[in-house]
Amino acid sequence: MLEKLKDYLAREIPLINAVLAKEIASLPPSILEVAQHVLNAGGKRLRPFLVLLMARALGYAKEDVYPLACALEIFHSATLIHDDVLDEAELRRGQTASHIQFGNKRAILAGDGLLALGNLIVARYNNPLLTQVVSEAILATAYGEIEEIAFSKNKIDKETYFRIISGKTAYLIQAACECGAILSGSEDLVLAAKSYGFNLGVAFQLIDDVLDYTQSHEIMGKPQLGDLREGKITLPLIYYVETLSLAEQEEFWEKFFSFSFEEEELEEILLTIKEKEISERVKTEAKAYLDKAGKSLEAFPESKEKEILNSILTYIVEREK
Amino acid sequence: MLEKLKDYLAREIPLINAVLAKEIASLPPSILEVAQHVLNAGGKRLRPFLVLLMARALGYAKEDVYPLACALEIFHSATLIHDDVLDEAELRRGQTASHIQFGNKRAILAGDGLLALGNLIVARYNNPLLTQVVSEAILATAYGEIEEIAFSKNKIDKETYFRIISGKTAYLIQAACECGAILSGSEDLVLAAKSYGFNLGVAFQLIDDVLDYTQSHEIMGKPQLGDLREGKITLPLIYYVETLSLAEQEEFWEKFFSFSFEEEELEEILLTIKEKEISERVKTEAKAYLDKAGKSLEAFPESKEKEILNSILTYIVEREK
Repeated sequence: MLEKLKDYLAREIPLINAVLAKEIASLPPSILEVAQHVLNAGGKRLRPFLVLLMARALGYAKEDVYPLACALEIFHSATLIHDDVLDEAELRRGQTASHIQFGNKRAILAGDGLLALGNLIVARYNNPLLTQVVSEAILATAYGEIEEIAFSKNKIDKETYFRIISGKTAYLIQAACECGAILSGSEDLVLAAKSYGFNLGVAFQLIDDVLDYTQSHEIMGKPQLGDLREGKITLPLIYYVETLSLAEQEEFWEKFFSFSFEEEELEEILLTIKEKEISERVKTEAKAYLDKAGKSLEAFPESKEKEILNSILTYIVEREK
Repeated sequence: MLEKLKDYLAREIPLINAVLAKEIASLPPSILEVAQHVLNAGGKRLRPFLVLLMARALGYAKEDVYPLACALEIFHSATLIHDDVLDEAELRRGQTASHIQFGNKRAILAGDGLLALGNLIVARYNNPLLTQVVSEAILATAYGEIEEIAFSKNKIDKETYFRIISGKTAYLIQAACECGAILSGSEDLVLAAKSYGFNLGVAFQLIDDVLDYTQSHEIMGKPQLGDLREGKITLPLIYYVETLSLAEQEEFWEKFFSFSFEEEELEEILLTIKEKEISERVKTEAKAYLDKAGKSLEAFPESKEKEILNSILTYIVEREK
């Protein structure tokens, strides 16, 4: 099943990249350079791919789906650039983060410029519903990030964690699916597309947060345990803390919020996460979201693209980076 | 003539502020707080006022012009918040800049959130041309700011200065006028509205840059000679340097780029600017732009609002802050 996904990707990603290069070419040179730095560093192109698949799964065959698809990648890049400034991250997609390479000022403005370019592309479709969907998603994304920062000096519970990842990740992926469905004109399936996107987005972030604890630096292109080192609380960590006694928990949080773990303590945390099968537990939760996403697809007519949308659900949980 | 402007403002500004408060009320609390900090600090509401006047001057009487007008103020606030982060400014509108009050992270995200909210409001009008106009203006604004930063370690000439202020200020004011005209449905006068806005915007920034050299700290709500202290090259400074011998120019630029002027040297610069009537020279150039703006209005039908649009041109050059 994943073979078909790979074939489809192999055919479509170069087309998406070509349109992406064309769409950003009109940017002022100093923004273009930052945009190219981020976009050429790779990335899965998940959001544009979802726009494309959704539109096609709902019978939309026109070529003009590509710029809309690319707009979603452009929004995503803008949020990545701003996030890296905010998180003071040093690496992104295995290379120097853009604010390190170009300075905070150019990075912030490149983000602003990319947001405006994305809106400009979406506006060309003469469909205000599309602009509304992407604007709501960008607002939700900013809110997710702001909430993450607001809580960054506090313990958070599972509920807050899910609210943050919904904002940070799921709403833009939801918007990608919604945009594809809106473009296709299949009004009665927009809600199903939205639900597929949201549940896929939550699962995607859950797996991302698991990979931070299980995958090596070389594969991820960013430091292992980056979340833990940066003081970011994710679900694997919430479950890890639950394995500790109250006294141990207190000691843990003190070190966590003062960023004062020794390397060997980090190793020990990794070992516990492995022994207690915490990754598996989080993956199981991710699978529940993927099941919901799969259910949302049931109302869709049969098509090659529906198959691919289903196989993405398998890919998400099996992916290694 | 300015009396009528004052009366109109006295009636409309409270209405604009009420809609503004309503539109931002839906923002997440942590963004809302930053937005209120900036919006409640005052500001002339020039952009929303222009949207309103343009729409009405072209016969549009409906109340739904207010949210569109407010969207332009929301975009403006977003760019102010990001600019203050970029310029590391400490004061804005006489109070602590928001990135100092709330931290860089919340300021950056509040800017992103406000940009998205503005787009959301504009999208409600079901007129993709409006979204296109504001997206282009935001892109141009980011470009103006980026160019200013790119040149911040170099001498700039008059041409570059005009390109920077067009981007930083004029295009969003142009967009405000264009949006009002588009909403009114008077397609044949959109270009005239655009030209009024652009020329007004350039003149507005020229006068702003003059005021930095002539007006006191108390009146402006930010430090006098702020531009000079921050290493920002504006037209009064370009003209000042022209009064120096080549050897003096070299010495000047060295101190300028190393931020190493003594207070008494700053006093001397102020004195020369006064003696050589440099402010008057820049004001004369501003007036030429205002004349062009006035000419653009000639095609407009007679109305109270056309009169007010004309009196704004007088106000701009006479304003003291």
